[in-house]
Amino acid sequence: MKIRIFWIGKTRERFLTEGLRHYERLLGSMAKISLVEVREERGFSREKAVIAEGRRILKQTDSYILLDERGREVSSLEFARFLEGRSGADFVIGGPFGVSEEVRQGADDVIALSRMTLTHEMVRVLFLEQIYRAMTIIRGKEYHH
Amino acid sequence: MKIRIFWIGKTRERFLTEGLRHYERLLGSMAKISLVEVREERGFSREKAVIAEGRRILKQTDSYILLDERGREVSSLEFARFLEGRSGADFVIGGPFGVSEEVRQGADDVIALSRMTLTHEMVRVLFLEQIYRAMTIIRGKEYHH
Repeated sequence: MKIRIFWIGKTRERFLTEGLRHYERLLGSMAKISLVEVREERGFSREKAVIAEGRRILKQTDSYILLDERGREVSSLEFARFLEGRSGADFVIGGPFGVSEEVRQGADDVIALSRMTLTHEMVRVLFLEQIYRAMTIIRGKEYHH
Repeated sequence: MKIRIFWIGKTRERFLTEGLRHYERLLGSMAKISLVEVREERGFSREKAVIAEGRRILKQTDSYILLDERGREVSSLEFARFLEGRSGADFVIGGPFGVSEEVRQGADDVIALSRMTLTHEMVRVLFLEQIYRAMTIIRGKEYHH
């Protein structure tokens, strides 16, 4: 399975970059994960920056699922069922100021990891963990949480 | 505000222990946070272990909120409103095999961070981040997420 996750800007918190590496290692050959870091826009108003960043994502994918706290929540099992049998999927995580209307409108689906607001960097790690969890569910492996 | 968070066993993932330290540092003097690590029970059946661990928690608190994925979800704002004006609160996070019925029944309330299943170690960091977020909401500080 080929999964691409698009997000805006580098992961700055060191413990979170280590978290990303941790799950990339665990996922190993279970899935081909590409973390696509889109360049952050600077020197514009927030609104314009978000539009420019969104366009950079839309150049690279036209079929994706948006992760956003306003989306519908899914359980880990539902998420695993969604991935099961697919050859791949693209996901988009918004930046600190969210995503543009263009990116929101273009999404195949919008899902939320939590009703609580999470830091956009934390979402990256949490989501990678959910992909790992989904893979272990699909393969019927035991996963102590 | 004095907040105690009870959980079972050490935090083993290094990136998560760093995450805990990160939020303890950020919280600084905003709240007095005690992370109470209850000794993990070994050599019993899972069920008996969970009961024994639960009793260790119940010896130390009789008024607490349980974090459990089956609980009701709250938003970050609702959580901040809950903490606001309190002098303190106790929270309990279950171990890899959850909590005993005794701990569940004794809880003042049961809240969930997500509909998704999270590792019990990840919940620790996520929850500390929510406490930090709540403190910044209460103090009216801007918090870029």
